Amino acid sequence: MRKVILGVSMSLDGRIARANGGVDFLHTPKEHPIGAFFASMDTAIMGRKTLDAGLRMTGGKLPKTAMKMYVMSQTKEPGERGGVIFVNESPAALVARIRKHNGTDIWLMGGGEVAREFLRDDLVDEMYLGIAPVLLGEGIPLFPSGFPQREFALTEDKSYSQGLVALKYERKRESAKPTKTKRTK
Amino acid sequence: MRKVILGVSMSLDGRIARANGGVDFLHTPKEHPIGAFFASMDTAIMGRKTLDAGLRMTGGKLPKTAMKMYVMSQTKEPGERGGVIFVNESPAALVARIRKHNGTDIWLMGGGEVAREFLRDDLVDEMYLGIAPVLLGEGIPLFPSGFPQREFALTEDKSYSQGLVALKYERKRESAKPTKTKRTK
Repeated sequence: MRKVILGVSMSLDGRIARANGGVDFLHTPKEHPIGAFFASMDTAIMGRKTLDAGLRMTGGKLPKTAMKMYVMSQTKEPGERGGVIFVNESPAALVARIRKHNGTDIWLMGGGEVAREFLRDDLVDEMYLGIAPVLLGEGIPLFPSGFPQREFALTEDKSYSQGLVALKYERKRESAKPTKTKRTK
Repeated sequence: MRKVILGVSMSLDGRIARANGGVDFLHTPKEHPIGAFFASMDTAIMGRKTLDAGLRMTGGKLPKTAMKMYVMSQTKEPGERGGVIFVNESPAALVARIRKHNGTDIWLMGGGEVAREFLRDDLVDEMYLGIAPVLLGEGIPLFPSGFPQREFALTEDKSYSQGLVALKYERKRESAKPTKTKRTK
C-alpha cells in the first residue's frame, strides 16, 4: 500500500512559514539525507497556498521533478497545467485514485489546512517532521485546530547540524503492531 | 546567574493541555531523569491558570515541595498563601527580584500566556521541552502568537520509551558562543 507521508519542516513553535509566507528560517543541513526521502516517493500533494508560496520562492517556475504533483484547490479549475495537476475532491477520493496505480509513497507537503483535512480523514500514515531551533512568535501553523486526536509511534529521532531535529512517526491505528524506535545521531 | 528554564511537555501539535485542561496525554517515562531536572532548581514560576489546573489535578492541594513557587496573577491579591506566592508584577521585575538572592535555576512551568510574556521580555535562557507522540487537534498552545523571534541552540536531543522526545535548547543571544549538541540515546 502506498503510504501518505506528511513531510514538513517547522519552527519550534510549529510554524511552517511566517505570516508573510517567508520560510527563510528553515535550512536543510548538508548532511541531511533529504535526497533519499524524496527518492522514496513519486507523488506529491499540496494545497493551493503552498503552491503559491513555492511559486513566489522560485520566481513563478517550479523546479523540474519526476514527481506527479497534485494541488488541492476549491477555486482553480481541475486539470493539468504548469507542471501540476489541480484537483477539487476530498483527500480520501484523491488518495484512493492515486492508489489505484502502482507506485511508491505519497508526499503530503502541506500546508496546515491540507494537513488538517488529511488528519480529519485519518489518511496520514507517517510523518517526517523537521524542527528548526527558533521560535517565530507568529506565522502559519502546521497543525491548526480542528481534527480528532491521532496517536503516533516515534520511529526515528535524529539531530543534524545547525540544531535541526528530524523526527519520524508512524500512525498507531487500532490494529497496529508496536514499532521500535531507531535512536541514532 | 540563575537561569530561567522553560520546562514543559506538549503534544506534537504544541498543546500543553486539552481545551478542558486535561493533560492525560502526557506521561513521564520511568527512565526519564526528571528528578535531576527538578533538583537543579529551587524556584518555580507559573501562571494562575496553570496553578488552577494543578489544583484540579491534585484535588485542591499541591504536593509538598522545597521549591519556592511564584504564581503570576493580575487578579489575585499578592502574597503568600496555600504554599505559593502570588505576584502581580512584570516578568522582568520578578526575575530581577529572585536573582537578588543566591540560589539555583528558576523553572518556568508555563502556561502559554506566561511563556509568551517571558519570551517578549527575552527572559527565557533555556528550554527543556518534552514532545509526546500524539496530535491532539485542539487545546492550549505552549507558544501562542505574539512575541518576537527568538533563536536557540539545540544542546540535547534524547528519546525515551513511549515515544517521548526531550529536547534541550539554550537561548542564542548576540554575544553567545556556539554550543555543541549532545546526541545520545
